[in-house]
Amino acid sequence: MGVDRTSLKTGALVRQACRSGEFTGQTSGLAPGFAQANLVILPQAEARQFQEFCEKNPKPCPLLEVTKPGDPCLHQLAEAADLRTDLPRYRVWQRGELVDEPTEITSLWQEDLVAFLIGCSFTFEAALIEADLSVRHIDQGTNVPMYRTTIPCESAGMFSGPLVVSMRPFKPADAIRAVQITGRFPAVHGAPVHLGFPEQLGIHDLSAPDYGDAVAVESDELPVFWACGVTPQAVLMQAKPDFAITHSPGCMFVSDLKDKDLASL
Amino acid sequence: MGVDRTSLKTGALVRQACRSGEFTGQTSGLAPGFAQANLVILPQAEARQFQEFCEKNPKPCPLLEVTKPGDPCLHQLAEAADLRTDLPRYRVWQRGELVDEPTEITSLWQEDLVAFLIGCSFTFEAALIEADLSVRHIDQGTNVPMYRTTIPCESAGMFSGPLVVSMRPFKPADAIRAVQITGRFPAVHGAPVHLGFPEQLGIHDLSAPDYGDAVAVESDELPVFWACGVTPQAVLMQAKPDFAITHSPGCMFVSDLKDKDLASL
Repeated sequence: MGVDRTSLKTGALVRQACRSGEFTGQTSGLAPGFAQANLVILPQAEARQFQEFCEKNPKPCPLLEVTKPGDPCLHQLAEAADLRTDLPRYRVWQRGELVDEPTEITSLWQEDLVAFLIGCSFTFEAALIEADLSVRHIDQGTNVPMYRTTIPCESAGMFSGPLVVSMRPFKPADAIRAVQITGRFPAVHGAPVHLGFPEQLGIHDLSAPDYGDAVAVESDELPVFWACGVTPQAVLMQAKPDFAITHSPGCMFVSDLKDKDLASL
Repeated sequence: MGVDRTSLKTGALVRQACRSGEFTGQTSGLAPGFAQANLVILPQAEARQFQEFCEKNPKPCPLLEVTKPGDPCLHQLAEAADLRTDLPRYRVWQRGELVDEPTEITSLWQEDLVAFLIGCSFTFEAALIEADLSVRHIDQGTNVPMYRTTIPCESAGMFSGPLVVSMRPFKPADAIRAVQITGRFPAVHGAPVHLGFPEQLGIHDLSAPDYGDAVAVESDELPVFWACGVTPQAVLMQAKPDFAITHSPGCMFVSDLKDKDLASL
């Protein structure tokens, strides 16, 4: 059932390998240059509130596409993509509890389900690397460190909770370039939300992230913080809706859009 | 001889008042929305080296227009502007010594003189204020604090010396916006060159600027540093060319260009 990861060079090839069941792993590094996205699926009633939450909090929850109720297909991010089969692995939630982690969700699909595709920082990290900046956690081969802050998101209906941020350390001149580069990508979290004073975000120990892995911040570096796509997932888990489906961590939807297409001019 | 400053609403009106001798003061705050520029005039031999210096150091020395040898008129920054009369006040230098501070330089004009118009931070400060950021030295009604750094410019012929920077303190989220806003204005110094660690620039006491006036940096603020148009003036004074003319401090050339015209897309 294995598939050669290096052969999955485009979003369409990744999705095909997911659909056929050949590929069920993490998508980081697959289809270089193609934008990946977070997935959240909710019944229509909760979906309305969740959409409002995302629209009120565009930095952590940049919406790339929202499907019509009951339609499992995408029309903007990819052609002929079926969200029921085209991700490597899903998580199924009932009242905030993880109940299954299947590789396709065809039998779970309902006529009132709405899918949200949310921008992912892989896109801006590719742009940082293309600009010759080094991204510490990528150099280390670990997950980006993420922290729950004391900054509340704007709430909407049942959805509320703190902003979650990711952190990448940079020397000052590189931090300035990182602001300029990621600011061109508002659809994938955009410019940082903070740099320099973690305690202003309620973060008291950078070496103890709430998610992901710690990285060193050298004495000549600034910790730079971006709004993180884990925010909507954390908010969803806190709201405990009756039913929800998300992608499994690291097992993203890989689109037909190029990372470059997400840059503003 | 007085003129009502508030009547000088455009670059053309300022230049006309300078030309008639009615206005000989500082230009800060005049003709809101019109870009102002630093002036350096040199004989052709030194001018070639100075142009190379500016081209090698575009952040401190962003060239807006360079005149043809002997031509005292501008063709890009303003229509029908005569650099011999259209600034409020000039400084005349011989071998690095200030020898005169006249209000027009008609009798000093020579067939081999070349004028350099260099972008000025007034333009990006207007953009910061328009974005509702407060700029400390403007709020205080003082000059921006400026510091000689230990960062050398790229030298060219007789011209060399350290980068001079201006400093404006901001809270982190505002510092990020200031990077994004000023990054859109590469013709007027562009994005900051540094933020956060003055000692990395060889600045050991922010309260003792080399030029301008000190401002407070609060404990929840980052000092943000931009390449400064005083750099080419300091380099010029250090090179001690036989003959040079500059604008008198604060008495800038006011152009027909709008600040907005200097924004990149």
